[in-house]
This record gives sequence, C-alpha cells and structure tokens, in this order.
Amino acid sequence: MVRSILSCYGPAPVALLVGPGDDAAVVEVNGRLAVSTDTLVEGADFRRAWSTGADVGVKVAAQNFADVAAMGARPLALVVSLAAPGDLRLDWARDLAAGLDDECRRAGAAIAGGDVSSADEVVVTGTALGVLDGPPILRSGARTGDVVALAGEIGRSAAGLALLGSAGSVDAALGLTASASELVRAHLAPRPAYPAGPDAARAGARALIDTSDGLLRDVGRVAAASGVRIDLDPAALTPDDDLLAAARAVGDPTLAARWVLTGGEDHALVACFAPDAGLPAAFRSIGRVLDEGQGIGRVLLGGRPWTGPDGWRHFA
Amino acid sequence: MVRSILSCYGPAPVALLVGPGDDAAVVEVNGRLAVSTDTLVEGADFRRAWSTGADVGVKVAAQNFADVAAMGARPLALVVSLAAPGDLRLDWARDLAAGLDDECRRAGAAIAGGDVSSADEVVVTGTALGVLDGPPILRSGARTGDVVALAGEIGRSAAGLALLGSAGSVDAALGLTASASELVRAHLAPRPAYPAGPDAARAGARALIDTSDGLLRDVGRVAAASGVRIDLDPAALTPDDDLLAAARAVGDPTLAARWVLTGGEDHALVACFAPDAGLPAAFRSIGRVLDEGQGIGRVLLGGRPWTGPDGWRHFA
Repeated sequence: MVRSILSCYGPAPVALLVGPGDDAAVVEVNGRLAVSTDTLVEGADFRRAWSTGADVGVKVAAQNFADVAAMGARPLALVVSLAAPGDLRLDWARDLAAGLDDECRRAGAAIAGGDVSSADEVVVTGTALGVLDGPPILRSGARTGDVVALAGEIGRSAAGLALLGSAGSVDAALGLTASASELVRAHLAPRPAYPAGPDAARAGARALIDTSDGLLRDVGRVAAASGVRIDLDPAALTPDDDLLAAARAVGDPTLAARWVLTGGEDHALVACFAPDAGLPAAFRSIGRVLDEGQGIGRVLLGGRPWTGPDGWRHFA
Repeated sequence: MVRSILSCYGPAPVALLVGPGDDAAVVEVNGRLAVSTDTLVEGADFRRAWSTGADVGVKVAAQNFADVAAMGARPLALVVSLAAPGDLRLDWARDLAAGLDDECRRAGAAIAGGDVSSADEVVVTGTALGVLDGPPILRSGARTGDVVALAGEIGRSAAGLALLGSAGSVDAALGLTASASELVRAHLAPRPAYPAGPDAARAGARALIDTSDGLLRDVGRVAAASGVRIDLDPAALTPDDDLLAAARAVGDPTLAARWVLTGGEDHALVACFAPDAGLPAAFRSIGRVLDEGQGIGRVLLGGRPWTGPDGWRHFA
C-alpha cells in the first residue's frame, strides 16, 4: 500500500537519491542535519469526522517541519508511518498522501519514504529532516536584554477548534463567516512560515522555539532552558478582530486573549535576538528577556504573572 | 515523559550535536544518508504478555537499523515515537528506552530524540538514519550469473514465535531447551548483524535486502526489481538441528523448512555479488541469479517453483 500511495508523487523539489520503494530512502546531506519526530493519533489529535486525510497529512508535515525550522533548519525530507484499521478507506489514505505531498512541496522538502501497518485507530508518525546552514539555535541561548520576537500568528488554531466544537460539524463551521472559516482551516491544516526559522538563524537569533503548545508554555521553556525571566508585552499580544469575533461566536469574549496566550498548534516561531540585532522581516517584538538567574523559567505579562486559566500550572 | 525516559541515556557512541530535549535533534552528516521508518503495533506486531518493553525497544531499533544496513549504510541515529494508553506502566516505558538504548549501542548509533502521545494501544515508530560510505545498494542491481549470498540466520524468529504460541507463555517457552529458548529470544528481540551491510557494499554487492518478510518473499523483491529470475540452492537452506527440534516440539516436522523459506523478522541480509567477487566473511552462497528478462521476479528452489504454503501467493 505504501508504494501505491507514494507512487502518486511527481518529481520532488529536492534531490532524493533514492525515494520510496527500497529498504530505505537516501538523501544527500553535507553538514548538520536536524531531525524531529511527531505523532498524530486519531481521537487525541484529530477526528476523522472533522479532518480529511489531506488535513492530517498537512498537519503531520507542518508539525514536524516546524520543529526543524525551530532549530534554524531548512526542511529537506519527511518519512511517514501510517498505522490504521483494516477498514480505513483507501481514499482517506490517498488524501493523506496528497496532504503530505502538498505541505512537503510548500516546505521545499520531499517525501522520502513510509511504512504502513495495522492498528485499531489511525496513528500517523512523521519524521522530518532539515538542513542547517549554521549552528543550531537552541532554547537555551536567551540573554538579559534580548528582544523576544514572534513570526506567524497565534491563537488561530485554538479559535478554530472552539468554533468547530461550537458549530458541531466542519460543514457548519466552514459555513460561518469567511474569517471564522479561515480559523477552522488554521486548526485543521496549519501552514507555518518555515523560512522564518533559517531567517532567524541568519539574523543571529540566540534562542528559537515553535509555539506548538501555546505561547506562555513555549516561551516558558525558553526561559527555563536559558535560566532567565521573560516579560511579554500585553500591547503586542492583543487579539485581532477575527479572534474577538470567534470568541463572541462561541459565547465567551474573554476566550480571545486566552487563545493568544495559551492556544497551541499554531507553530509560529518565537526567537530571542540581541538588543542591537535587526529583526528579520517576518518577526515582530513581543517582549524582553529580563535578568538572568532569578525566577528561572518564569514568564511575565507586562511585568506581572498571568493569572488566567491554563496559565502557570503547566510551565511554572 | 520523553525527557525523563531519555535522560537515562549516558554518553552516546556517536557525536550528537544536539540530543533529546530541544525542538529537534542535530547530527553531523557528510555525504549520503539512508533513512527508514518502521512501526510496531501492539497486537499485530507484539503482545505485552510476551514482550517486555526492552524486547520491543530492541525490536524497533533492529528493524529500522536492518533497513539502513540493507542499503549498505552504517547505523547513525534513531528517533522514536511512542503512542500509548494512559495506564501504560512507567516501568514498561523505561524498559522500552533501555532496550532502544541497548540495541542502539550495539549498532554504534545514538538515540537522537523522541515523542510521546496517547493512544488506545501501544504504537512504537522508529526512524533510523544511517551513513553511506559509497553508493546505496539497491534491490535492482542483480545481474545474470551473480552469486546470491546470505549473512545471518533465517527461520529462527518464526520458530521462536511458533514455540511461544505452542508453550502459551514466555516463561513456559523460555523453560524449554536452551536452543528453544534462544529461538524465542530471537523472535522477541532480534539482533541483526548490521556490519554485514556496509561489508557487502565495500565488497561490491550489486543488490542488497534484509529478510524482514521471509527469504522467498524478499529474494522475490530483488528478482522483481532487477528483472531477473533467482534460483536458490536447497542444500544451502536446510534447517539446522535447532529448527528441526523446534518443529518437532510444536508437532509438525515439516515446519522447519518452511520457517527457513518464509519466516520473517530475522533481518538477515541477502546480497547479490558478481561471480568473481569474493564474499565478505559474514556471507555464504545460497543461490544464483539466472537469465535476465524471463519470468521476471520469480524465485526458484533447485530450479523448480516452491509449492509449499505461504509461497508464491505473496511474491509471484
């Protein structure tokens, strides 16, 4: 089945020396390679009633490429393992392959190979390879006075999920306003801006992470790994009209701010730059690294702890 | 949990620039990299009643490293994704990590990173990276007159599985004779001879594959990819005393020959060498590549089709 699914791919945008069909794929690499693996499980990470195969393909590729971009690497290739019930429709698997292919092309990477096995539920594991043109950008390099900057939008995936839950079906949710429909798409099939990772590395970023688990939590990881406190600027993190409208639509206007701060799966990038470094085009300042050595790992919002739900619990 | 599980690893035998704990791992590679991914699913591929976490860790590493060795590559690193029920014992996950670590060290490779998520059953996906010192050895390079050679033993995993099924429990099966107990171990935690892959490549192998799905089936893949017929030598494939004893123990002496020809999961290597090439130490001749262009993909046994069960059906 892997071969038949993967045989739909045309020429890949990067040179694969050996593609799917032999014991292993072969890629040409010279230098440092970033490698990340991430799994989507039906039920926990997606519902087949809500996500098409293509959505899941895009999402597993996006999640993995965002991780290599968050080291400063350029996406190179993806291998994918699908475990699925015997009664999974071949159409769904073909759609999955199409979604993987689509997001790989968008990322400038190739599908290098795959594996198919049987399981009670659909489990899709991607492993992304990325090429580093310089040293990897870790979470641990933030220093006092650094500018904390964000590339990409946040809160949109969480808003889309809330709209889906509220509308009860994808069709109903996609039938809402155009902007609501875009939030739903952002949840089902996120499309991160991968070049922002290598751009940040070239601009001298000292720390880099993607917002897979929500801004406060992921910034907290940078703060913890770097041994610093980070103060985020509330004025730079106000929800936009789309999020405000979505929050009103699901009946709780306070949710918009919460989605921005704690919503995950947007795969935006957060970088810390020296105060005198120019920010790359995709980034905007959202905060500042405070003193090292005190309150290690704490994230503040306008100088004060954030007291909303899902806040400190996870990352304090 | 990934970090706590992976933090048990000491210094790795290869230089990992960045190990588990950041967005992605980073390895140094110069040249060609083989990449393979393979999944083990509880129920279909192992039972928790029979396999310890360590067994599953060894098996997922072995299966993936055998695939990169079957391209002629040296194992470099492994990333692993574990999806598991919330009630999986932490002990089991720690054992899994220990088994992964053990087989990675045996292979001369490093655990580079991982991911943990929730699922109804245990699903473990490994992705192996291997370094090629020369061109990859594909399945498609066999030519008329080539010697077909085998490195490693075959039929042992299938024999071990039959003994387990017959004995009903691991304790009962391991309490059989010493040689039976070794067959059971070979099934639960295969330990392939990875260096035979690069050795074959250095010796000029023209085609290479690992016997993950059984000798006839995998040799059939070489025959199909190369457009040749392959004749295996029955005298070189007679079951040894261990297999004969196991077949008697499970009540069907004819099984021994069948395990050799069709038993999978041994991860031995089959290579095709030019007639004048010397075989590397680990290999012994088991057959010959016949005329190209006729009966493409057919595998014969002493010049005749094998008519036993599980035979041609899968690979003709």
